[in-house]
Amino acid sequence: MDSSNMNQQHHHPQSCLDIAMEVHRVVPPPHETTVQKLKTTLKETFFPDDPLRQFKGQPAKRKWILAAQYLFPILQWGPDYTLNLFKSDVVSGLTIASLAIPQGISYAKLANLPPIVGLYSSFVPPLVYAVLGSSRDLAVGPVSIASLILGSMLRQEVSPVNDPLLFLQLAFTTTFFAGFFQASLGFLRLGFIIDFLSKATLIGFMAGAAIIVSLQQLKALLGITHFTKKMGLVPVLSSVFHNTKEWSWQTILMGFCFLVFLLVARHVSIKKPKLFWVSAGAPLVSVILSTLLVFAFKAQNHGISIIGKLQEGLNPPSLNMLQFHGSHLGLTIKTGLVTGIISLTEGIAVGRTFAALKNYKVDGNKEMMAIGLMNMVGSSTSCYITTGAFSRSAVNHNAGAKTAVSNIVMSVTVMVTLLFLMPLFQYTPNVVLGAIIISAVVGLIDIPAACQIWKVDKFDFIVMLCAFFGVIFISVQGGLGIAVGISIFKILLQVTRPKTVMLGNIPGTDIFRDLHHYKESMKIPGFLILSIESPINFANSTYLNERVLRWIEECEAEDQKKQSSLRFVIFEMSAVSGIDTSGVSFFKEVRKMIEKKGAELVLVNPLGEVMEKLQKSDESGELMRPDCMFLTVGEAVATLSATIKVQPSTGVV
Amino acid sequence: MDSSNMNQQHHHPQSCLDIAMEVHRVVPPPHETTVQKLKTTLKETFFPDDPLRQFKGQPAKRKWILAAQYLFPILQWGPDYTLNLFKSDVVSGLTIASLAIPQGISYAKLANLPPIVGLYSSFVPPLVYAVLGSSRDLAVGPVSIASLILGSMLRQEVSPVNDPLLFLQLAFTTTFFAGFFQASLGFLRLGFIIDFLSKATLIGFMAGAAIIVSLQQLKALLGITHFTKKMGLVPVLSSVFHNTKEWSWQTILMGFCFLVFLLVARHVSIKKPKLFWVSAGAPLVSVILSTLLVFAFKAQNHGISIIGKLQEGLNPPSLNMLQFHGSHLGLTIKTGLVTGIISLTEGIAVGRTFAALKNYKVDGNKEMMAIGLMNMVGSSTSCYITTGAFSRSAVNHNAGAKTAVSNIVMSVTVMVTLLFLMPLFQYTPNVVLGAIIISAVVGLIDIPAACQIWKVDKFDFIVMLCAFFGVIFISVQGGLGIAVGISIFKILLQVTRPKTVMLGNIPGTDIFRDLHHYKESMKIPGFLILSIESPINFANSTYLNERVLRWIEECEAEDQKKQSSLRFVIFEMSAVSGIDTSGVSFFKEVRKMIEKKGAELVLVNPLGEVMEKLQKSDESGELMRPDCMFLTVGEAVATLSATIKVQPSTGVV
Repeated sequence: MDSSNMNQQHHHPQSCLDIAMEVHRVVPPPHETTVQKLKTTLKETFFPDDPLRQFKGQPAKRKWILAAQYLFPILQWGPDYTLNLFKSDVVSGLTIASLAIPQGISYAKLANLPPIVGLYSSFVPPLVYAVLGSSRDLAVGPVSIASLILGSMLRQEVSPVNDPLLFLQLAFTTTFFAGFFQASLGFLRLGFIIDFLSKATLIGFMAGAAIIVSLQQLKALLGITHFTKKMGLVPVLSSVFHNTKEWSWQTILMGFCFLVFLLVARHVSIKKPKLFWVSAGAPLVSVILSTLLVFAFKAQNHGISIIGKLQEGLNPPSLNMLQFHGSHLGLTIKTGLVTGIISLTEGIAVGRTFAALKNYKVDGNKEMMAIGLMNMVGSSTSCYITTGAFSRSAVNHNAGAKTAVSNIVMSVTVMVTLLFLMPLFQYTPNVVLGAIIISAVVGLIDIPAACQIWKVDKFDFIVMLCAFFGVIFISVQGGLGIAVGISIFKILLQVTRPKTVMLGNIPGTDIFRDLHHYKESMKIPGFLILSIESPINFANSTYLNERVLRWIEECEAEDQKKQSSLRFVIFEMSAVSGIDTSGVSFFKEVRKMIEKKGAELVLVNPLGEVMEKLQKSDESGELMRPDCMFLTVGEAVATLSATIKVQPSTGVV
Repeated sequence: MDSSNMNQQHHHPQSCLDIAMEVHRVVPPPHETTVQKLKTTLKETFFPDDPLRQFKGQPAKRKWILAAQYLFPILQWGPDYTLNLFKSDVVSGLTIASLAIPQGISYAKLANLPPIVGLYSSFVPPLVYAVLGSSRDLAVGPVSIASLILGSMLRQEVSPVNDPLLFLQLAFTTTFFAGFFQASLGFLRLGFIIDFLSKATLIGFMAGAAIIVSLQQLKALLGITHFTKKMGLVPVLSSVFHNTKEWSWQTILMGFCFLVFLLVARHVSIKKPKLFWVSAGAPLVSVILSTLLVFAFKAQNHGISIIGKLQEGLNPPSLNMLQFHGSHLGLTIKTGLVTGIISLTEGIAVGRTFAALKNYKVDGNKEMMAIGLMNMVGSSTSCYITTGAFSRSAVNHNAGAKTAVSNIVMSVTVMVTLLFLMPLFQYTPNVVLGAIIISAVVGLIDIPAACQIWKVDKFDFIVMLCAFFGVIFISVQGGLGIAVGISIFKILLQVTRPKTVMLGNIPGTDIFRDLHHYKESMKIPGFLILSIESPINFANSTYLNERVLRWIEECEAEDQKKQSSLRFVIFEMSAVSGIDTSGVSFFKEVRKMIEKKGAELVLVNPLGEVMEKLQKSDESGELMRPDCMFLTVGEAVATLSATIKVQPSTGVV
């Protein structure tokens, strides 16, 4: 816009003075009291989505309805529910039920819990979620990673074999704490904490966990009875190869066949999403087929281990099993925290993914409260930790789920199973459950995403590798902790080392851009124009001080060659979104240092908060002299050039 | 510069098209390989001051000289040393020696060490520093806070009364580790770690430590024999008032008189800096006077406790006393880390303060190596941890110190004392040492600075209070840890909640500024111009997604009232200095979301790194379409307005 004018103007140096008269002054921001500022900050920090927006200006009755709908999203979509929607939901609900039943049994075993607890956990929580949750696609139930972590962390103190009742009590107590933490995070609007698990961390973590989970299945797949209790790659492999005598060829054959069947089914559904029912139905088919096989050949007598007798009936209450005292309290709280955050991350991520696909919105904090309450209710009805499972939610979505009613349908199906069909599972071989778990977790290893990360951001790739190898070689929590620690360290490092860029004029315009990036841009002799690209605070003010000094010395050296001297140091401050007391000292020190060198410090476009703080600390008014502040770099250079009567040949107008 | 042209142009809407033709394109940054980028990043992170700058283009011999001067700054100023400089240094050296001798004895007692160790520590380390250090004003020796922390942390495991030899061994070992950590931080160029102790933290911490140190002196000042071993405010006060029977009026009278004398002397020197020698000489005068008093009246028999017999002679070697194994290794490492970082912070801060006053430069990382080596040497010559002391350095500066020779003079004076004058201290009463410590640490309570912080930044004030009350009520390390934790939490919170600002056009210009700040600026119908003021990464991409959605919805609502619709969402990206893979996903998701709303995403001035990453991840080329990228907001709005044939009345040219 300005380029053509600039060109025209280039030949009229006298207009310089006119311009200097019309320069736009930097004005202080509108006054706000400390309380107002605090309110704004708190609102932006904790209520960035402004959840009460819709309440504004509504009559009282409408407000009550909106509040009820806010708390129970079922009231939002319930009244408009139609038979057509119901048809879709029944199909998808039955589909995920056929997946949930075998997976529920398998994951409970992964958590060292009785298989029936997995089915209990597929009955109550989905019902709670259907009332409270805002995602239409989330299929709720036990998930592999949370099950794995729960089982492995609790096993550190209590043996599930020697003391199964205590183990179960701790599992329920952990579930309660997990739910409590989840609901609290949502209620206290601290949902951003899960954002610290970056995508790269999660991809590495999930892949590592998938391998750890798969390795654990070698026990079932090979029919080994004396298996290590450790989770790492090394102890598991050594345990496998030190017990080769226990390998049972019948088990291996059966496991291999069903694993191939399940993986092929999965592959088919990936290639043709319309055939989602192939992979969705495969686990149930495997369970039925293998159970029939065992029953027909009495294979349990030939080295194939089976689930055994399962209790019939619905979830017994378990409120009396929660233990809020005793020596294991610390363990349950810690495990609750870790599993709670991990399962929350999975649930929220899955909810957001499908909400984005269907273009509706999932409120993170509300979702956390829903998942948290679901687990708190679950912990008192014999359920262990549940969340929205990625694989089942994908099947749910592909099967055409329209609302949370599909969860209700699944829940009812599980209920029927619990009431009447439990005896049928007696002969189900453990090896098939292992195969089901492996075929489910294989999908967590996302190699294309890893390649993409390598391509885009090498540092993220390193974070991913740390999470991956940390999980495999150290521990599930350890790997996660390392990856999160590195990610945070990177952020802190970025904060301590903000970018400063020297700007130059793009000839024929009043645009100033990075000299290094825009090769045609030119440095203006006598001026050093630096763009500071970060808030200035205690962590970086020392660095910035040193860096600016170096810029000035380099600039002086260059200017000397051209026989001019540095007259103005201009800070382009558009990107300095905040400062603290150290930042204020930085400006004072830099100004002194620049003045000692015979130059002047000029600020361009300081933002509201920065101006205010500088003003407050600047008793002498030296730092904020109005003639040392400009709205754009162009205006600053034009005005200041006029004052030093720079030759028209320097490239500046 | 452009304002006048804009005004002229306002009446020629046809020029719009001309301009659109001349718009400046965004160009990709010059290509750099991953290795080059890594090199640049590492250099900016670890060598921001480019210490090898002066070596460039020098002949080999000169390089050797420069390198020697770099390692031993004494070679820089030594050759030019003159008699005049020496005169100044002798005066200042004797002055700080008169302060260092009583303070050395006092601080050693504060650290629960034999008083003579304080004198040893004022002899060897200053000599080492004079050779290696680059500050001309630093007066090296034991300091109050590091002594306090060393004493209190080691006392947790070993009693200095029951097991004095082991305690001494641990103190030397701690000093070695402290020195090792300090030197390593400098050598590994990790000096920025001490920047995390912000000014606000330090002010609160020092004030709290001053109070804790003063409280400890109540033992000496009141003549209590059974004193608590805890450091907190509550246990000390309760110990004081539960032992009122032990109070000795002779001690209290003597302590009160000398304390008033010392504080008055201090006050005089503050009011008239020329009378620096009043406060500098006061401690030695107090020691001499009180010793004479005790000797004359045999006051040691009347309830006044005295230092007792001190060994004569120079520092014995203590290399054999360092313990790198055994059960206390963890404690010494931890204490070394804490005291090392604390004393480093004091030393560097003091060095920088006086360097800024005299306009020379102190290289932080080099200084760390100097202080670290000094402590490592000290630990093998019976010295405990030392650094540049604030109070003594100020006296040094006021007394006219010109070079590190004043440290040598002080050291020689201490040596003479050690060799010949030790018997004179036998009758020095402990109460005077307590008074000397109190009068020294009172200066650490900086109330004007606290008021200034309150005025400028309320959050920093809270951090300061946390450090202060944490030190008083929890523990010295605890208070420091809390304050640093809160400061880092604030940075992380700022990173998770970056500012987004809606920009409007300042009428008659092509300048776009914050609508809220510049009241005259106007929103352009059909455009939503957002300035994102932070790097986009995993910690904030979810938030930004939500916040941008809310901006868009608010903008749509407003546009609807004016019967126009949102056509373009412009991101001003000048302040987005970096992105990671989550940031890339953010752009993809936002673009989809905006397109679903029938609008288009336009990027303005994406920086080099951001452009590169977006390009790499953008196989379809949709995100980086050249016609959706502009160099300035003004050009973007002008060009895009032309394409939607916006009415001239909208205020945009």
